[in-house]
Amino acid sequence: MIKAISNRGQAQPASPMRRLEAPYLKMKEIRSHIYPLNIGQPDIETPPSYMDVYRNFPGPTIKYGPSGGLTEYRKTLSDYYANCGISLTPDEILVTTGGSEAIIFVFAAITDPGDEVIVPEPFYANYNGFANMVGARIVPVTSQAETGYALPPISEVESKISARTRAIMICNPGNPTGYAYTEKEIKDLKTLCLKHDIFLVSDEVYREFVYDGTHHSILSESGFESHGIIVDSLSKRFSLCGARLGQVASHNKAVMDAILKMGQARLCPPTVEQYAAMEVHKLGQDYFDGIRKEYQKRRDTVFDGLMKTEGVFCKKPRGAFYIQAKLPVENTVEFAHWLLTEFEMNNETVLVAPGNGFYATKDIGFDEIRIAYIIESGQLARAMDILREGLSAYPGRR
Amino acid sequence: MIKAISNRGQAQPASPMRRLEAPYLKMKEIRSHIYPLNIGQPDIETPPSYMDVYRNFPGPTIKYGPSGGLTEYRKTLSDYYANCGISLTPDEILVTTGGSEAIIFVFAAITDPGDEVIVPEPFYANYNGFANMVGARIVPVTSQAETGYALPPISEVESKISARTRAIMICNPGNPTGYAYTEKEIKDLKTLCLKHDIFLVSDEVYREFVYDGTHHSILSESGFESHGIIVDSLSKRFSLCGARLGQVASHNKAVMDAILKMGQARLCPPTVEQYAAMEVHKLGQDYFDGIRKEYQKRRDTVFDGLMKTEGVFCKKPRGAFYIQAKLPVENTVEFAHWLLTEFEMNNETVLVAPGNGFYATKDIGFDEIRIAYIIESGQLARAMDILREGLSAYPGRR
Repeated sequence: MIKAISNRGQAQPASPMRRLEAPYLKMKEIRSHIYPLNIGQPDIETPPSYMDVYRNFPGPTIKYGPSGGLTEYRKTLSDYYANCGISLTPDEILVTTGGSEAIIFVFAAITDPGDEVIVPEPFYANYNGFANMVGARIVPVTSQAETGYALPPISEVESKISARTRAIMICNPGNPTGYAYTEKEIKDLKTLCLKHDIFLVSDEVYREFVYDGTHHSILSESGFESHGIIVDSLSKRFSLCGARLGQVASHNKAVMDAILKMGQARLCPPTVEQYAAMEVHKLGQDYFDGIRKEYQKRRDTVFDGLMKTEGVFCKKPRGAFYIQAKLPVENTVEFAHWLLTEFEMNNETVLVAPGNGFYATKDIGFDEIRIAYIIESGQLARAMDILREGLSAYPGRR
Repeated sequence: MIKAISNRGQAQPASPMRRLEAPYLKMKEIRSHIYPLNIGQPDIETPPSYMDVYRNFPGPTIKYGPSGGLTEYRKTLSDYYANCGISLTPDEILVTTGGSEAIIFVFAAITDPGDEVIVPEPFYANYNGFANMVGARIVPVTSQAETGYALPPISEVESKISARTRAIMICNPGNPTGYAYTEKEIKDLKTLCLKHDIFLVSDEVYREFVYDGTHHSILSESGFESHGIIVDSLSKRFSLCGARLGQVASHNKAVMDAILKMGQARLCPPTVEQYAAMEVHKLGQDYFDGIRKEYQKRRDTVFDGLMKTEGVFCKKPRGAFYIQAKLPVENTVEFAHWLLTEFEMNNETVLVAPGNGFYATKDIGFDEIRIAYIIESGQLARAMDILREGLSAYPGRR
């Protein structure tokens, strides 16, 4: 008999974004093209200055760096935040192995096993996985497609607070919703967190991807000296998904001290990557303006394509590179699978992420999908045509 | 008032290896040289074939790889283990961000909060940090300097098993002890683990560093189809500390499935590093023979130096690149600090790691230090002379 693992190990959730990976790999052999709209892997080139550091790295040894990140690089990040209107000293920033590690460290630092973190759903599904790893629990508060997935009424958020609540966590702008929180929503959350003495954790990895209006970081607000924590990543911002660099930032010294000790346990984040990351941070506002323009065009292409599709509902999202949309089908898990494995237009099809995987509440989100617009507009237009045809041909259509 | 963090966050232990970092940085400005014997950062050059991959990486984008590691690279690792006499399919290996992440994943997969893992002490202190992060508890069983830190009598290990015990964990060969477990000890542990239906987790990152006799991996033993888990790292083996690559390996499918889901949550280990790591695995036995010879010479230098020092006790360790030694002082925390900040020979001194940090039992190990022999023999001989003089000049000497 196989030795059993722990309850926690058994409860570890599978990633909904990767659930269709096996049929996808199979269908790739059969279809002439499958448009990958399921994962947030940007196609934008990594800045050449990053690659140059790899190419010229002197060596001769790839050594451990400091546990909190290279001193010079933390200064770079401090300057980066200053440019975003966020004042953080290098000591208030700790470099992590991707945004993923940042979230694990934060959950471990602010929760004890059994404690709760409130998250507006739909949310980035891996929050569940990180929480499970450290024995914490995500408590969802449901936002609505009809409001574009805005923050639910603050009284509804407050109603989720229990004696075990340690934090509210938001993703701003949101994955999978694309929703960018308003200044008022951030202030309302702050008031609520201070009232109940709980943290506000803000995942701001898509900070630069706001197309209409501006981004409101929690740490550009005063009053978060003690209760605000940012988790961040270079993956999307600089097309550095495989580099595994992120960071945690907070003015709360107790949080940063605990996280530094966790950082010491795991020794250090990748070394060469940090040297290279210093270079990409020299790119100015022009770089982000160019990327933002490109993604905005894509968002508009996808949104227009969806609006032309009968029975589809979504509000135009302001940020990130995702659209969460309601489809006229009962079950998008089945639909996405059918679209991938049974439908084709000129032997092409599209791969989308079923929406229910982004909800913690059981049995909701089954009529939603998430589209990541991480391919260029011409391709996206074509992918939207295929989705539209697929929907009209789908036997399970409502 | 500052917002309080969790009990877990407050309990996160500081790394004893990095405890003297602040005075070290200060004294570096004052002393002409400080021999760094405190951390396991090898000075050996990273293989040039690794650096070549960095230099020629085609780009243009640094993408996510598969969560379990690049398929090709897992095949490479399967071949590597086959050469070590360990039969593992690529599916039984998962690539992690350093050995650190491997240990966190294993602890999360096999323990629930409050569960226990028995570890012979002195042990690699960061095990405490990883266990604390996931709410598990390390239960030490004390090994003795007099036996060279061999496995304590198996009845003593067994006496530590409780209803909450989920695993025994060893480091083989050991950090900080240098002890390499014998075949009989591995078999005894296996019998015990099977009897009590608990896992044996073996940290084998120093596998190639055994100077007298051979290494006995738990997975070269039959009977570990279900209860054995290896955690591993390239950091020491290929001087790749800053690359952050390691792996977990087990025949237990439930363990590997749970760990893959954790891997999916954090997306992937560093991408370019894996391509580069494929290259270094092409280095043959010659490479390891050369390195082993170099480290053996260093071990002999340090051991001979210690044997010439009055009042010092240690057995000659067979492996890794550490020696844990008893000194004729009451408190090596104070002695190491004094040596660093107050003693000098021609304006040089040495930095060693106090031994108590490697014990979980309170108030033991205070007469021990750990020496990492990660500088060349000539320098080590000089460092041993300084240590000897320091000991004889030390006011707190017994």
